[in-house]
Amino acid sequence: MAMKRWILTAAFGFVLAFSIGRALAQSDPLPSWNEGAAKQSIVDFVVRVTTPSGADFVPPAERIATFDNDGTLWPEQPVYFQVAFAVDRVRALAPQHPEWKTTQPFKAVLDGDMKAVTTGGMKSVGAIIAATHAGMTTDEFSKIVIDWIATARHPRFNRPYTDLVYQPMLELLAYLRANGIKTFIVSGGGVEFMRPWVEKTYGIPPEQVVGSSGVTKFQIGADGKPGLLKEPKVEFIDDGAGKPTGINRFIGRRPIFAFGNSDGDLQMLQWIAAGTGARFMGIVHHTDAEREYAYDRDSRAGKLDKAFDEGTAKGWIIVDMKRDWKKVFAFEP
Amino acid sequence: MAMKRWILTAAFGFVLAFSIGRALAQSDPLPSWNEGAAKQSIVDFVVRVTTPSGADFVPPAERIATFDNDGTLWPEQPVYFQVAFAVDRVRALAPQHPEWKTTQPFKAVLDGDMKAVTTGGMKSVGAIIAATHAGMTTDEFSKIVIDWIATARHPRFNRPYTDLVYQPMLELLAYLRANGIKTFIVSGGGVEFMRPWVEKTYGIPPEQVVGSSGVTKFQIGADGKPGLLKEPKVEFIDDGAGKPTGINRFIGRRPIFAFGNSDGDLQMLQWIAAGTGARFMGIVHHTDAEREYAYDRDSRAGKLDKAFDEGTAKGWIIVDMKRDWKKVFAFEP
Repeated sequence: MAMKRWILTAAFGFVLAFSIGRALAQSDPLPSWNEGAAKQSIVDFVVRVTTPSGADFVPPAERIATFDNDGTLWPEQPVYFQVAFAVDRVRALAPQHPEWKTTQPFKAVLDGDMKAVTTGGMKSVGAIIAATHAGMTTDEFSKIVIDWIATARHPRFNRPYTDLVYQPMLELLAYLRANGIKTFIVSGGGVEFMRPWVEKTYGIPPEQVVGSSGVTKFQIGADGKPGLLKEPKVEFIDDGAGKPTGINRFIGRRPIFAFGNSDGDLQMLQWIAAGTGARFMGIVHHTDAEREYAYDRDSRAGKLDKAFDEGTAKGWIIVDMKRDWKKVFAFEP
Repeated sequence: MAMKRWILTAAFGFVLAFSIGRALAQSDPLPSWNEGAAKQSIVDFVVRVTTPSGADFVPPAERIATFDNDGTLWPEQPVYFQVAFAVDRVRALAPQHPEWKTTQPFKAVLDGDMKAVTTGGMKSVGAIIAATHAGMTTDEFSKIVIDWIATARHPRFNRPYTDLVYQPMLELLAYLRANGIKTFIVSGGGVEFMRPWVEKTYGIPPEQVVGSSGVTKFQIGADGKPGLLKEPKVEFIDDGAGKPTGINRFIGRRPIFAFGNSDGDLQMLQWIAAGTGARFMGIVHHTDAEREYAYDRDSRAGKLDKAFDEGTAKGWIIVDMKRDWKKVFAFEP
């Protein structure tokens, strides 16, 4: 009898220990983050702003978090993924444009000479964007993006681009939302390029995406149906000082939490830091050449220089990808 | 015993009848709407798009409804309320601008000669908006609006402007939201003029307000703090063809439900009507001079002419305020 009771007690203890272990494992909302200052700061911040009795409590309606996209939620090397999209579009449209064989920057694109394209600077990029992102309705463009994102593959990882979103950031987005913090993308990338796939990939709906945009024009089409024609004219560049103005214009509230990774995010982070109450400013530092890429002050895409210095000086959270992320991509073993 | 059982049964029946009656009363989500085609169309539409097994079911994420503000959610007579705000601001700022006593359109405003202001057309209005809506940070402007909305009174009703929101439309907004339909404002009015008060008044958060806007400029202030300076320069006019482009830009999804009241809403309604799947296009027709105002084809503010004809021809729902609304304002007896 005593023996039997002992076995029962032991079994009960084992089940209990197992349950507690499991509960603890389940209760880690950021399993792809290594233990350390970055992870701890995130959790501390979320607890502070969601504890009703605390001094830093923020009402749910005011819990806005903004995330840069390129280099913050997914990579931006060897080129911004939207540039890879534009290059693929130039190739797809080339048969309809025989003149591109001899006209720059299209010739360079068709020759695969990306160096020539990038040395052409913003003028070259502008011409390519105009040729590939305009002249169709917004609905048509959306379909083109959806097709591309479903079929294109990253040159190094040989996987769809959406496989390359950072697993730790996906966990962070979900963790914030689980705590009533509304997540937005605020990106220099094109808003019409992001919206067709971000909802499925990040859980962020189109109406919570702020980005650069071209002019669209309302028109009644040849079929008598109203539509919005994308014109080859820049409307808004959501980068640098454009980010706080974009946030003000689209969201109309100052976020309490933001993550970026480059100098293009500096003004967004400065503006958020200047608000009253609890604030979280985070920067992703690309330090892992093995699993992803390593670059900062001298990079063409995602240059991180001034923001690194100011973030360091002001105690913003600088995430060292190599040190702070257990996993970069979900597909890692 | 039989008697006792009879009493119990009767009592039970009474309680039951009372409960059913109460449930029925509670189940009317639009008590300020008279029974009729308009109310019925709204309820039918909501049932159709939310019935999972139905042919017209719309997934929750895609349930977007857009509402014009002036003349649709609150009045726009005798002048747009934002014009009343600008006039009050000119008066408040006049001591700092002695030159206004002799300069138009400010002289006309200070003389209370609104007719002279309006005959000056968009140029006059532009000068007044520039003088009253720029030269301060977005935070400062927001405070000015909050103060005004708390103290200003409508000349006819002698009540705060926010008392004048249409009770039937408040019920409609709440009813849509209760059915997972996300409500947005899409107004020709200034987005920075609306955002400070719409959340409290309509239950619509700032990030769901699309409107006209001026340019804002990111700057580090004299105090070393970053802020957004409002500049006297128009950025975007969210009216007419600007409404569908504004919706596309800010929301990034075509709504399934919209309400307007004037020709400035026509393109929004056309664009929404052109989408696939169930659609609801509504127009508020101001027919009640006694309780509110009566105007349409010849009105300066909220002219309803082409949209009335197209809406009638296409079977859009035209709400006759006098006939369809049991109550216009909550304060009515």
